[in-house]
Amino acid sequence: MSTHAHTITLAHGNGGVQMQQLLRTVIRPALATPALDDETDGAVLPPVPNAELVFTTDGFVVQPLFFPGGDIGHLAVCGTINDLAVMGAQPAALSLALIIEAGTPMATLERVMQSIGQTAAAAGVPVVTGDTKVVENGQADQIYATTAGVGWRAPGAVPGWRACAPGDAVVVSGTIGHHGIAVLAARNALPFEREIRSDAMPVHRLVQAALEATPSIRWLRDPTRGGVAAALNELASQADLAIAVDQSRLPVTEEVRGAAEILGLEPVYLANEGRFLAICPAEDADTLVAALQSMPGGERAARIGTIEAAHPGGRVIVATGFGSTRILDMPSGEQLPRIC
Amino acid sequence: MSTHAHTITLAHGNGGVQMQQLLRTVIRPALATPALDDETDGAVLPPVPNAELVFTTDGFVVQPLFFPGGDIGHLAVCGTINDLAVMGAQPAALSLALIIEAGTPMATLERVMQSIGQTAAAAGVPVVTGDTKVVENGQADQIYATTAGVGWRAPGAVPGWRACAPGDAVVVSGTIGHHGIAVLAARNALPFEREIRSDAMPVHRLVQAALEATPSIRWLRDPTRGGVAAALNELASQADLAIAVDQSRLPVTEEVRGAAEILGLEPVYLANEGRFLAICPAEDADTLVAALQSMPGGERAARIGTIEAAHPGGRVIVATGFGSTRILDMPSGEQLPRIC
Repeated sequence: MSTHAHTITLAHGNGGVQMQQLLRTVIRPALATPALDDETDGAVLPPVPNAELVFTTDGFVVQPLFFPGGDIGHLAVCGTINDLAVMGAQPAALSLALIIEAGTPMATLERVMQSIGQTAAAAGVPVVTGDTKVVENGQADQIYATTAGVGWRAPGAVPGWRACAPGDAVVVSGTIGHHGIAVLAARNALPFEREIRSDAMPVHRLVQAALEATPSIRWLRDPTRGGVAAALNELASQADLAIAVDQSRLPVTEEVRGAAEILGLEPVYLANEGRFLAICPAEDADTLVAALQSMPGGERAARIGTIEAAHPGGRVIVATGFGSTRILDMPSGEQLPRIC
Repeated sequence: MSTHAHTITLAHGNGGVQMQQLLRTVIRPALATPALDDETDGAVLPPVPNAELVFTTDGFVVQPLFFPGGDIGHLAVCGTINDLAVMGAQPAALSLALIIEAGTPMATLERVMQSIGQTAAAAGVPVVTGDTKVVENGQADQIYATTAGVGWRAPGAVPGWRACAPGDAVVVSGTIGHHGIAVLAARNALPFEREIRSDAMPVHRLVQAALEATPSIRWLRDPTRGGVAAALNELASQADLAIAVDQSRLPVTEEVRGAAEILGLEPVYLANEGRFLAICPAEDADTLVAALQSMPGGERAARIGTIEAAHPGGRVIVATGFGSTRILDMPSGEQLPRIC
């Protein structure tokens, strides 16, 4: 290790000696995936009989790279695992494509890679293939990470928005808004009394437990950018439904509520990366909530609303108490850039 | 279309109204993939019985975005298809994750998206899932595109470097260096007499034809960054072999040779994205070359060398004529940054 550079240079993206050294001393050791050591152009995975393949990708440009409760590497692993999970898939493997700014300290890359390796190992979903590019100083913001993921699911698992219907219940797997506030606070050095930590975590085990307890789940989604408001508005608009959310049932911690108020933000618009929303028949909602509450990360699961009626174009309303309601719009404008 | 912005703004990455508009007016129409219209977190693909899954990824940061013979979108599709192809897989689907700099003209994104859609359609490999992030002006160089790909192959297809042995032939599928020179010339506005066009093309059909004609192929690789020199050095070092390349047999066009000389570069180090190298038993080399020459894009295929002997640590030498040889090193230093 003594011979390697203290900062990333353009030579680390050259396809030659320096790139191989970077791969062999920093990137592959952190991932500890045997498939990567073969140094081929891709990874080979055994098929799973009678399963459909699910395939997804996400780019991560969060700023700052490190924040309470997570970092870009942790997020890049969780985000793609969670996209597979809410498709009803068992995540099998990830790819990792890095775009690194020349001048980035090697220690920063090492820290991100350690985080990726640890999160992937804890989740049981290895990074099996990757790519590394370097751009000139000033042409990126240290590190951008794009993960893709593959997973397997039983054919037709999680039917999707077409199966959602009036009367169905809306369930959230836990408290909302921690990730958004944690990143914003870190970016702007906001002096909140208590540190708010990102909720970022892989939810695949929680989703599998939910699906086992409640096979009638019709739709799943992780409310990332744009938060719960964006996810429910997307569903409402796709399926031409009116969805009602009961504000008093939203699991929002005191510190998130307080921080959001100070920032003039609503928790329903804040990004999450360790939560999911589920739609299920009303009669199964208690079973689903109980199953989630018994699992790590699901303790604060709650039924938060109901699909009320057909509504062409879709609409999400919030019951704010005392019989008053207001429309919860799709987020618009800049919101919180680079939150994931 | 009349209401959409003329440049990309941070709001286009917000997960809300503006991002949906961008997806619906620019990104999805260019790709024309039914799976994308479902607006879920991932794509579902039917399994292929008795096939292994191959999974790969590549990030593209080429500068300039547009160059003779290609652009970043064309390259992003070809690059990942080619990585699947040289693993012996039939490419099935791609993902696309964009990182876009705020201030990028909408017309630039539209042009890149059109190119992605056209190249994917012509190759028969659809983009089925994606992600779009926007970063502040000055934090990227217009557009970075990361593709991942999945494909299927017969178990054990293309055995890899462990199967390569002394006596085997080295074959290249066509002329080398056009891509590297085309990008460099466009970046630096070099006034070559004749325009040199990138060789970027998907090679999956050519690879399949090669494998059908020559099932004994032991190893395949697309010589991208670092060119033929990097790819053969990697093989030599992995397999502890000495590889000899006959310089007089390298298919290099007059214009690439001339341009490379002016730039002080050797064609063997120039990047390609529409070529591949193959190792096969010597007795099958003529069959392989003939099969390639009969296909579009393979007309200039040639046997360019031989695996000579075991050689711990590996070594690649070039016979330069008149009995003289020199060592062809692994590329080192900055070479040609952002060539793909």
